[in-house]
Amino acid sequence: MNTTRRSIKVVQNLLEDNDRTADEIHERFEQAKAYTVNIMASPGSGKTSVILRAIGALEGQARVGVIEGDIASAIDTEKVLQGGAHDAVQINTGGNCHLEAGMVKKALPSLNLDELDFLFIENVGNLICPNHWCLGEHLKLCLVSTAEGHDKPLKYPEIFAASDVILLNKMDLMAWVDFDAGRFYEALRSLSPNTPVFEISCRTGEGVSKWVRWLKHNESKRLAHRVALF
Amino acid sequence: MNTTRRSIKVVQNLLEDNDRTADEIHERFEQAKAYTVNIMASPGSGKTSVILRAIGALEGQARVGVIEGDIASAIDTEKVLQGGAHDAVQINTGGNCHLEAGMVKKALPSLNLDELDFLFIENVGNLICPNHWCLGEHLKLCLVSTAEGHDKPLKYPEIFAASDVILLNKMDLMAWVDFDAGRFYEALRSLSPNTPVFEISCRTGEGVSKWVRWLKHNESKRLAHRVALF
Repeated sequence: MNTTRRSIKVVQNLLEDNDRTADEIHERFEQAKAYTVNIMASPGSGKTSVILRAIGALEGQARVGVIEGDIASAIDTEKVLQGGAHDAVQINTGGNCHLEAGMVKKALPSLNLDELDFLFIENVGNLICPNHWCLGEHLKLCLVSTAEGHDKPLKYPEIFAASDVILLNKMDLMAWVDFDAGRFYEALRSLSPNTPVFEISCRTGEGVSKWVRWLKHNESKRLAHRVALF
Repeated sequence: MNTTRRSIKVVQNLLEDNDRTADEIHERFEQAKAYTVNIMASPGSGKTSVILRAIGALEGQARVGVIEGDIASAIDTEKVLQGGAHDAVQINTGGNCHLEAGMVKKALPSLNLDELDFLFIENVGNLICPNHWCLGEHLKLCLVSTAEGHDKPLKYPEIFAASDVILLNKMDLMAWVDFDAGRFYEALRSLSPNTPVFEISCRTGEGVSKWVRWLKHNESKRLAHRVALF
């Protein structure tokens, strides 16, 4: 029992340290006017594909940077650079199941942050722990796919409740999987009645432009708010 | 830095405690002759469906018990009991991203362990942390689905390398997703050249009987080994 109590205390300390660092890097994102989105999802939900689709939809209008978080490998960073990201950097957590603000802070000098309009942070594939560690982001985005089943909001309620926007990906698979949209929305709405949800397919492009319009609108609102404040 | 070092030390202590408890419950599984399989996978890969299919394939031949691990809800326990499980118990981790041996130990008195031939432990949906916490199981099973993409062994190498058997689920979706089987096996074989892999579809039933035959064979081998020892 002593070990467990000690562990909880240490985790609390780590989370407080994390929040301080998150505040600090949030200021950096604000100064650079880089609207920052923390993308959280299971492995294989389509996080990288969502980023690639957003880069495509924003081409010629905005410069997009990406921080890729993974246990191992740099394949996603290569993909987003090939896909038109203005800049990208890989964080390998070496076993850690989520990104922490300190990891993002260390990665920032490798990015031309002041040149970016949007910064996507692709978290490690995990529907649980990323939610506890703030990265200084403007927006928490939770991505889930039809292939994972309609029961995910019931089984991982915290991350759905805490997110600012939810993307339901792989709509093109709807005919081939047992996904009951009614039950999905019922569970989701009991957790977060007003959170915007966008149904998309990164494979066909369905729904992407609507979501990116919403994202741009949110980013402009924030900038307008800043102008009004200062 | 001090906080981090302290944290690592506490986590090491917790893992050592966990392993001691795992050894203890392994003995319990041995005494009960309940062959125990720890099922690890992302959210939505089909862990519960794999268990339901196994229960179906073993009907009339073996009694199957299930421990269901989830952040929240008891829907999977209801499903497996309806699906013919001899006994089942739910563990809600309340936010913890993996099961630990102590949680399983606490759940055991709620199960008629001595009546079981197989015990499936469905871990929390997570491709990272469950791998670090032994549950006293006989077999570590890693499940992954074609919908998650072929790059999972590259991105989550530890869990694939540590598993005794791998199931590739949702083979029925192969025509509708971008899954390159050659690249999947290339990455997997670089980590674990000899681990058995079974391609299955829980939706159509494809490949399930072959996998369950292998499971029964493994269980008999273990029993034969025990008979030879004592």
